[in-house]
Amino acid sequence: MMVKNGSVIYVAHPEKTIDPSVHTHYVEDSIDLDNVPLNGGVLLKTMYLSSDPYMRYRMRDPSQPAFVPPIILNDPIDNFGVGQVVRSDDPKFKPGDYVYGYLEFSEYFVYPGKIHHEYKFPLTKIEKLPNVPLSVYVGTLGMPGTTAYQALKYFVTEKFKTAKTMFVSGGAGPVGTFVIEYSKAMAPHLKIIASAGSADKVKIMQDAGAEVAFNYKEQDTFKVLREHGPLDIYWDNVAGPTLDAALQNFRDGGLIIACGAISQASHDDSSVVRHFDEIFKRSLTVHGFVVATGESAAAAPHFFEDVVPLVRAGKIRSREHRYVGLREAGRALADVHTGANTGKAVIVVSEE
Amino acid sequence: MMVKNGSVIYVAHPEKTIDPSVHTHYVEDSIDLDNVPLNGGVLLKTMYLSSDPYMRYRMRDPSQPAFVPPIILNDPIDNFGVGQVVRSDDPKFKPGDYVYGYLEFSEYFVYPGKIHHEYKFPLTKIEKLPNVPLSVYVGTLGMPGTTAYQALKYFVTEKFKTAKTMFVSGGAGPVGTFVIEYSKAMAPHLKIIASAGSADKVKIMQDAGAEVAFNYKEQDTFKVLREHGPLDIYWDNVAGPTLDAALQNFRDGGLIIACGAISQASHDDSSVVRHFDEIFKRSLTVHGFVVATGESAAAAPHFFEDVVPLVRAGKIRSREHRYVGLREAGRALADVHTGANTGKAVIVVSEE
Repeated sequence: MMVKNGSVIYVAHPEKTIDPSVHTHYVEDSIDLDNVPLNGGVLLKTMYLSSDPYMRYRMRDPSQPAFVPPIILNDPIDNFGVGQVVRSDDPKFKPGDYVYGYLEFSEYFVYPGKIHHEYKFPLTKIEKLPNVPLSVYVGTLGMPGTTAYQALKYFVTEKFKTAKTMFVSGGAGPVGTFVIEYSKAMAPHLKIIASAGSADKVKIMQDAGAEVAFNYKEQDTFKVLREHGPLDIYWDNVAGPTLDAALQNFRDGGLIIACGAISQASHDDSSVVRHFDEIFKRSLTVHGFVVATGESAAAAPHFFEDVVPLVRAGKIRSREHRYVGLREAGRALADVHTGANTGKAVIVVSEE
Repeated sequence: MMVKNGSVIYVAHPEKTIDPSVHTHYVEDSIDLDNVPLNGGVLLKTMYLSSDPYMRYRMRDPSQPAFVPPIILNDPIDNFGVGQVVRSDDPKFKPGDYVYGYLEFSEYFVYPGKIHHEYKFPLTKIEKLPNVPLSVYVGTLGMPGTTAYQALKYFVTEKFKTAKTMFVSGGAGPVGTFVIEYSKAMAPHLKIIASAGSADKVKIMQDAGAEVAFNYKEQDTFKVLREHGPLDIYWDNVAGPTLDAALQNFRDGGLIIACGAISQASHDDSSVVRHFDEIFKRSLTVHGFVVATGESAAAAPHFFEDVVPLVRAGKIRSREHRYVGLREAGRALADVHTGANTGKAVIVVSEE
């Protein structure tokens, strides 16, 4: 059966922000679902695609080194996603199975049997949880959740025992709300301060359990932290001036998880850190963390056994900003870079 | 017996660099060594005084908070030093004993029996080591040595087992040479890259055992690290652009000891950190460290038992830049801030 097959192609490197109409291009082709050769791979129907801030680092001139592989010009974009098996050459999968993997931004495509791409980890079969959309696998149970879970579990478990106050920046995104909710579940005594850039995001952070939630565009971060600190833990999703404000409001011996630096993706003057010296003056520890590349989120030890019960109990919840249709994918990529989305940015390619 | 008693008074807060003639003032008074009241304290003859970069943080307007107490305007300056007991009300000390403590910048003064000042930890009696001047107690066996020892022992011991390459900035100072020599003693396989700001300092770092020693004013730090890296460990004495160069040349999972940020003492534009994002991209860990305030260097567990044998064996050596006479004290304070000294800055108040 021949069907239309839309795709989103990467067509130009952004200098600073992403302009969907300049840097991405939606194209339509057709695909023969019954006869397209699989070569040991699996034909997938794409359901959900993730848009994540780190993608900005992939959208670059490939001559520039970075911690993630570049997206190739004039190829379809790819990222974490959820799909359904249409046909399979791989005995581990049968038609109808739901899978999680590193998917092309196409309605249909063949997930290769042999993996060359650094991110093309083997597909993982996933289970549908009752009353939770499968898109949870690109958010709470996907890369953002794994990121938050692993760093909290490895680096913060001990500190939870004595910490009084924690600050989370980028607190309304999928990593931020996971951090707030998981920390509350592990350390109910903890006072959590959380920042983001809109009134809607403030509501999300309050809903997630932050005692002090504020809009950094309207309130001065330094003053809020001075009033509600000092900090024992800072989960840093943004770096730049927010980090500077946190550094000056830490208790001695505090802990920073450096998990993102969106303000630094383009290294302009607004993104510099001026108070690094507080790290030695206050004897702080900083753990930089990026979720392991080249492995499935599902490979994090104990991730599903620890987190799925919290999801089922409603203690860790997903909040999504849905972009319907591949034509909206470029907008989804741009929004997570500027913060225009509210909740986990999910591109809905086909409904469940 | 009445004798002349010179002192160095702190008379003005520096804006940026220290000008000895503007910010300090040498005065002479007299003191009656036989009759000055001790009130439970100890009359000391000052022998050696230390000049350390952190003193720049003490030389500030006291309304500004900082991690160390301010020096009080129109009072004598004080810092780590070595003296000899002249008279004592304290049964732990007798005339002729050598002691280490937080000493006034005066030829003679009474070390109080009751300690109020945050830094006026109780005096420690010290032993003269053969062929080593007592000034070793303000350098290798004093605060700089304790700083290097504690951070290396607590944070780097494990990493020494697998690390291939280490970078030390400020490598010719008393902390830097201790770091190089102690690391070589603990991990002989380690390749050490070290930077400082003059040809004489390069010789010191080579003498201490650095395989790659360079003058950052003449060679580009980034290029040297790119050629001889990637780094597993970076001992950071300076922060700023040197830290930025290191951050971009790290192996994933590396370790940074943030032990000073002289470039940031005045927070101008030359001192900012632009590549903090490498901390998360490369999964680096940063341990900020400042030696415990309010306790003697001698209080570091195992410090003397671990380090004295290395000093006796000539594996950890002192290199001093001596300033003779209290009139030179202001110059000694200024020089360690600009890097004009070569070796540990020691003010010689009276000879052994």
